[in-house]
Amino acid sequence: MKAEIIAIGTEILLGEIVDTNSAHLARQLPELGIDLYYKSVVGDNRARLHETFRRAWERSDLILTTGGLGPTDDDMTREAIAEILGEKPVVDAELEQRLRGFFASRGYPMPESNIKQAWLLPSARAIPNPRGTAPGWWTERDGHIIVSMPGVPPEMELMWANEVRPELERRFSGEVLVTRTLKTLGIGEGTVDEMARPVYAMPGIGVGTYARADGVHLRIGAKASTREEAWMLIRPAEEELRQIFGNAIWGSDEDTLEGMLGDVFRERGETLATMESVTGGLLAATFTDVPGASGFFQGGLVTYQTEGKIAAGVDLGVIREFGVVSQETAKEMARAVRVHADADYGIGITGVAGPDPQEGVAPGTVHLGIATPDGTEAAMTIVVNQGRAAVRRRAVTTALLLLRRALYGQLPQ
Amino acid sequence: MKAEIIAIGTEILLGEIVDTNSAHLARQLPELGIDLYYKSVVGDNRARLHETFRRAWERSDLILTTGGLGPTDDDMTREAIAEILGEKPVVDAELEQRLRGFFASRGYPMPESNIKQAWLLPSARAIPNPRGTAPGWWTERDGHIIVSMPGVPPEMELMWANEVRPELERRFSGEVLVTRTLKTLGIGEGTVDEMARPVYAMPGIGVGTYARADGVHLRIGAKASTREEAWMLIRPAEEELRQIFGNAIWGSDEDTLEGMLGDVFRERGETLATMESVTGGLLAATFTDVPGASGFFQGGLVTYQTEGKIAAGVDLGVIREFGVVSQETAKEMARAVRVHADADYGIGITGVAGPDPQEGVAPGTVHLGIATPDGTEAAMTIVVNQGRAAVRRRAVTTALLLLRRALYGQLPQ
Repeated sequence: MKAEIIAIGTEILLGEIVDTNSAHLARQLPELGIDLYYKSVVGDNRARLHETFRRAWERSDLILTTGGLGPTDDDMTREAIAEILGEKPVVDAELEQRLRGFFASRGYPMPESNIKQAWLLPSARAIPNPRGTAPGWWTERDGHIIVSMPGVPPEMELMWANEVRPELERRFSGEVLVTRTLKTLGIGEGTVDEMARPVYAMPGIGVGTYARADGVHLRIGAKASTREEAWMLIRPAEEELRQIFGNAIWGSDEDTLEGMLGDVFRERGETLATMESVTGGLLAATFTDVPGASGFFQGGLVTYQTEGKIAAGVDLGVIREFGVVSQETAKEMARAVRVHADADYGIGITGVAGPDPQEGVAPGTVHLGIATPDGTEAAMTIVVNQGRAAVRRRAVTTALLLLRRALYGQLPQ
Repeated sequence: MKAEIIAIGTEILLGEIVDTNSAHLARQLPELGIDLYYKSVVGDNRARLHETFRRAWERSDLILTTGGLGPTDDDMTREAIAEILGEKPVVDAELEQRLRGFFASRGYPMPESNIKQAWLLPSARAIPNPRGTAPGWWTERDGHIIVSMPGVPPEMELMWANEVRPELERRFSGEVLVTRTLKTLGIGEGTVDEMARPVYAMPGIGVGTYARADGVHLRIGAKASTREEAWMLIRPAEEELRQIFGNAIWGSDEDTLEGMLGDVFRERGETLATMESVTGGLLAATFTDVPGASGFFQGGLVTYQTEGKIAAGVDLGVIREFGVVSQETAKEMARAVRVHADADYGIGITGVAGPDPQEGVAPGTVHLGIATPDGTEAAMTIVVNQGRAAVRRRAVTTALLLLRRALYGQLPQ
């Protein structure tokens, strides 16, 4: 089953919108046994849209498209499919009724141009879109399938999950690729690669290493005719890798550092509080991104001013002696917020996001401090040269690493 | 000048990484007078990479590639270019010296596989990469140009800005497309479209409307042989639109709501403080994303627990009477943090991110409160059905809107 993905829209072609839909779909095709060969973007241009559809129809069995299903003249996905198939769209009575109902329930009349959203072709059936007015199209003829979904990501994602993916799963059972990603921390990519060597020779699998913001990932992949068979190949490799890396593996697949840390906190019944300046709330936002954060996240302070730090219990003497951007102040912030919020662990972050230096400290310098229940305080410093956003992101990741070390008693004294 | 962009890497094809590079480049091509016709993604597969390069070489004058410049066997961009051109790569002495120097300065030996990063072709010159070990390649022959840049976004972006874009600007002066985007707030897309109609007929320009998270955008575009000429066409249209929309236009082009609000605060010498639960620090992180936030952002509290709210001065009586997720509590949070942090404006956000309801309140419900220097308090409520991340994002945008209304005296009483 050869597949390709086409994202439709001038705004995507010109980069005014970043296309997240294609990645969302691409990630899930291998486990369905569908080989993705091409991904492309085409603007709202009738000739180029037609050309793109024609080439796709020739070379692919399954064509997944997103976008171009809106009500305006710019939205030409339906027209392009009709043209390729040489069929004529007609207004479907049931779709029309649903569409008019949608507008009526909101109390305003339906612009007549919207009637396009009730079109169907003889070879197409509508795919429900509970989050919007544009139904998808499942078009099928001569062994080719075109699945057209809306461009708005929440609409597309729900339609894919509820309708399209289950239907594809039911109908195709080619050779399935299953992958397992193990996430390590604290070891360089070259060393991970060397340590993992013994596993590379195991039968039926492939192993790759990937350097990521949250450490080096090891991905084991196996192809087999069923998912169960693929797992039979992966499991011994995973066990071997877990043996080799031990505690350096902190999670797998969709696990995030913040999610794993949250689990540990909740299991242990311990709590956390944060005091941030340079990251300005990003660390708190990262923890509270996880459902159930209220079970361990005691609170966060964004202290962009020295007075805010003092008010939360930071010792002015430490700031005066070492400067507000220093390891000592980071530790003092961690200690203070731990007490202030009555938490088991405290984290303090202070630094210079840039672009300009501050009090003689170079932009990109970030100090992170941690305070633990047994009275240990520790600090780390990073220097990031890749701009303001990268400084903040890297600082958050480093805070998560520091916290993991603390939870496993691996802090430098 | 017909251009295409090719993003290279199996991780991008399979959606394990979202490709932001292509959008970054695509956004900047129109103003250089370069027409972008295709964007595609190809995996680390020699045959398909070759095929993609060959097709691009046939149909495009300028090919911009990102990725595949690393040191491993998987990185085949250089090999693919050499194959298309029928040239043989040789190690460039100067590049080799720089590469070995990079490793020496870090105190570890260079793996011999890295020597690929010192390769050059007769038709290629190296493009400096101050942020990494992989230089880019500028390859030129028979009227075609291939510009190969690294896949790591900060490396790619700096190389593009410092080296590639200026060189393209110097060499090409085709018909230039200049655009101006005006950002409106508080008016629906249909109404904006109708109000803007008189401008649509103005000569030499095109106008489009786009519904965005931060309001409806109006984009004026004009093509001319020089940038100045294009601006001559745009300016009268912009003036007319500003006349029509007045204060409803809050910014243009790259302006962000948080940036504009920051400017207003600094100009007026006023300050802001935030207390968030459901957004968990995202609002503070949004304000502090702007350089110079310390000039007005007095501080933020992430109060994920009721005790944290009480400690910051929220009246327990209000929470008991109306519930922690209520307009009254949101207003009380705004009032309390304004006093607590000694700021002119306070914002409070409380809600249910989901996936589960909380105290009988449906997930996706968010209340936002604001307190102003003249004692006004106001609140807004939104209900978002598109999942946890969308709830948090929409809540932040709504807080920015509420704040803008407050700053311009447009709050509901």
